[in-house]
Amino acid sequence: MRATVYHAPGDVRVENVPDPKLVDPTDAVVRVTHACICGSDLWFYRGEAKWEAGWRTGHEFMGIVEDVGREVRGLKKGDRVIAPFAFSDGACEYCRKNVQTSCVNGGYWGGSDNDGGQGEAVRAPFADGTLVKVPDEFANDEKLLKAMLPLTDVLGTGHHAAVSAGVKPGSTAAVIGDGAVGLCAVLAAKRLGAERIIIFGRHQDRLDVARGFGATDFERERGKEAIDRALEMTSGGVEAVMECVGTAESMELACAIARPGGAIGYVGVPYGAKEGLNVRRLFSHNITLRGGVAPVRAYIPELLADLLAGKLDPSPVLDLTVDLDGVPQGYAAMDGRTAIKVMVKP
Amino acid sequence: MRATVYHAPGDVRVENVPDPKLVDPTDAVVRVTHACICGSDLWFYRGEAKWEAGWRTGHEFMGIVEDVGREVRGLKKGDRVIAPFAFSDGACEYCRKNVQTSCVNGGYWGGSDNDGGQGEAVRAPFADGTLVKVPDEFANDEKLLKAMLPLTDVLGTGHHAAVSAGVKPGSTAAVIGDGAVGLCAVLAAKRLGAERIIIFGRHQDRLDVARGFGATDFERERGKEAIDRALEMTSGGVEAVMECVGTAESMELACAIARPGGAIGYVGVPYGAKEGLNVRRLFSHNITLRGGVAPVRAYIPELLADLLAGKLDPSPVLDLTVDLDGVPQGYAAMDGRTAIKVMVKP
Repeated sequence: MRATVYHAPGDVRVENVPDPKLVDPTDAVVRVTHACICGSDLWFYRGEAKWEAGWRTGHEFMGIVEDVGREVRGLKKGDRVIAPFAFSDGACEYCRKNVQTSCVNGGYWGGSDNDGGQGEAVRAPFADGTLVKVPDEFANDEKLLKAMLPLTDVLGTGHHAAVSAGVKPGSTAAVIGDGAVGLCAVLAAKRLGAERIIIFGRHQDRLDVARGFGATDFERERGKEAIDRALEMTSGGVEAVMECVGTAESMELACAIARPGGAIGYVGVPYGAKEGLNVRRLFSHNITLRGGVAPVRAYIPELLADLLAGKLDPSPVLDLTVDLDGVPQGYAAMDGRTAIKVMVKP
Repeated sequence: MRATVYHAPGDVRVENVPDPKLVDPTDAVVRVTHACICGSDLWFYRGEAKWEAGWRTGHEFMGIVEDVGREVRGLKKGDRVIAPFAFSDGACEYCRKNVQTSCVNGGYWGGSDNDGGQGEAVRAPFADGTLVKVPDEFANDEKLLKAMLPLTDVLGTGHHAAVSAGVKPGSTAAVIGDGAVGLCAVLAAKRLGAERIIIFGRHQDRLDVARGFGATDFERERGKEAIDRALEMTSGGVEAVMECVGTAESMELACAIARPGGAIGYVGVPYGAKEGLNVRRLFSHNITLRGGVAPVRAYIPELLADLLAGKLDPSPVLDLTVDLDGVPQGYAAMDGRTAIKVMVKP
């Protein structure tokens, strides 16, 4: 089959690779129908994460089950499935506690050991624990399928930011970052009842999406003046801050604007975030730091239900579609910020 | 009156200072009957906190109300009161949310602006919001009064560590640090139902107190082997970790032994703690960092009730008593670790 392979910073290629096949009896093989390029893929694309030539890329995908191992119970050939960005056995302590990203047998798509989502097909370990079946009546509605695709990562991650930050009905929330995760955090905060949602972003097109998702206030700066404005407009700080970038600058901002007794929900992969942590302020004002790599598997059922009920539509974050050959151009578009998020249709 | 004054690292003196008097109508004047020297006082005593000569010391005290301002409603002359280590107005948003240490009108005892507890008397701002009256029938029981004294700080702080770490009935907990706060964290974790309590400490006398408070496992090391032992004995990490020191080393240990999906409750004043934070591990395993300067005022009523009911006795942490003239020797004893915690009886 053909799949995307990392070669060097700025260099991903679509190449022939071995066809996936069942290895363990709990495996499924899934033909990929929809995939994404993720903001976090840019970390290796820009050379900031240590990657090796030959590693496979892509951790967000949906598809059709082509084959299942003899121990798979809940899925069959032909089922439409959503894959969270990490696979998990669904049985261990952490899976039962809904921290599937810490599954003792789990792992991430792509890299050296697993198929990536940016290809024609994937061997999916622990199919029952990992994959979520889309009800048959919705399995071929292309508009709905596009809306579901962010469930594989960014919507669940934005939701995790909102949950971790403790967004409650009537609360004031802030989202730092206008990437797809930040935008989804706005949507999730709105869904959880936030009354006022301030987004910190720099791109007008993305802020427009944020407005559609429920953002009420827009801040294009990040320095002292922006902090002062946020403290002023909230009379002392934001109860629920969602940090969706992961840099020192964004974490510094999160610490500066959080309200005493409030929380920062952080989901941006922490490249530099530690340097930005103001532990003194967190300590002095009992501000909680909660979050991490989102256990998206835990959230898919509830978010999918709202989505199928027409109450949730994250599809505006997907503003460019490419086919498999177009994946390298998709990376370039995200790197150059001419696209928020790229959908891949192999 | 006479009170303790900071001069330089290693140099505190008991001197004549102006008598306290009512300034605001919400003030009380309290004659100090019991005070403490705190582990956190050692930060300035050792020159690690920036203090200025002339500042007043002591933030833990109990006493008898001598006078009240005309707006004080809940207290009268002669009442026995417990003072939390911070004063607070009891009325602002943060007080109502039980984050009294972030009170918009609040502050800390001692320093340049306020009387310290290590003296004969104190002007207490916001007396109604700050001070907690001891029921008259218990107001003169010297044994009980000694047991109450840790309510001013270390017991409430240990309890805050336990609450922040999410200690639940049946859970496994770890306490890092065998100072008075760490020992009180053991007591608080036991009270909240922890089944297994591992304490990391280096002093046999303190570990003996910890055993009496409910600790079940004792670890004298902090390096890789100690971490491996903790991970081994808990099959993968401790759900509720209480960090009661504040150094890089203790925070590093806390991050290393926390269980995926668990929490670190941190109450050690963070001198260096940031350097020890393993944000990557916290992020990868959704480990929450929660805590800060304890809103002790919020906890006094519930802890006092248990204490008066005979269910809670932190007095073993007070292993040396001095009079006011003995305060400098008390500092030396705590600095030299020949005392866990010093009670001062002016």
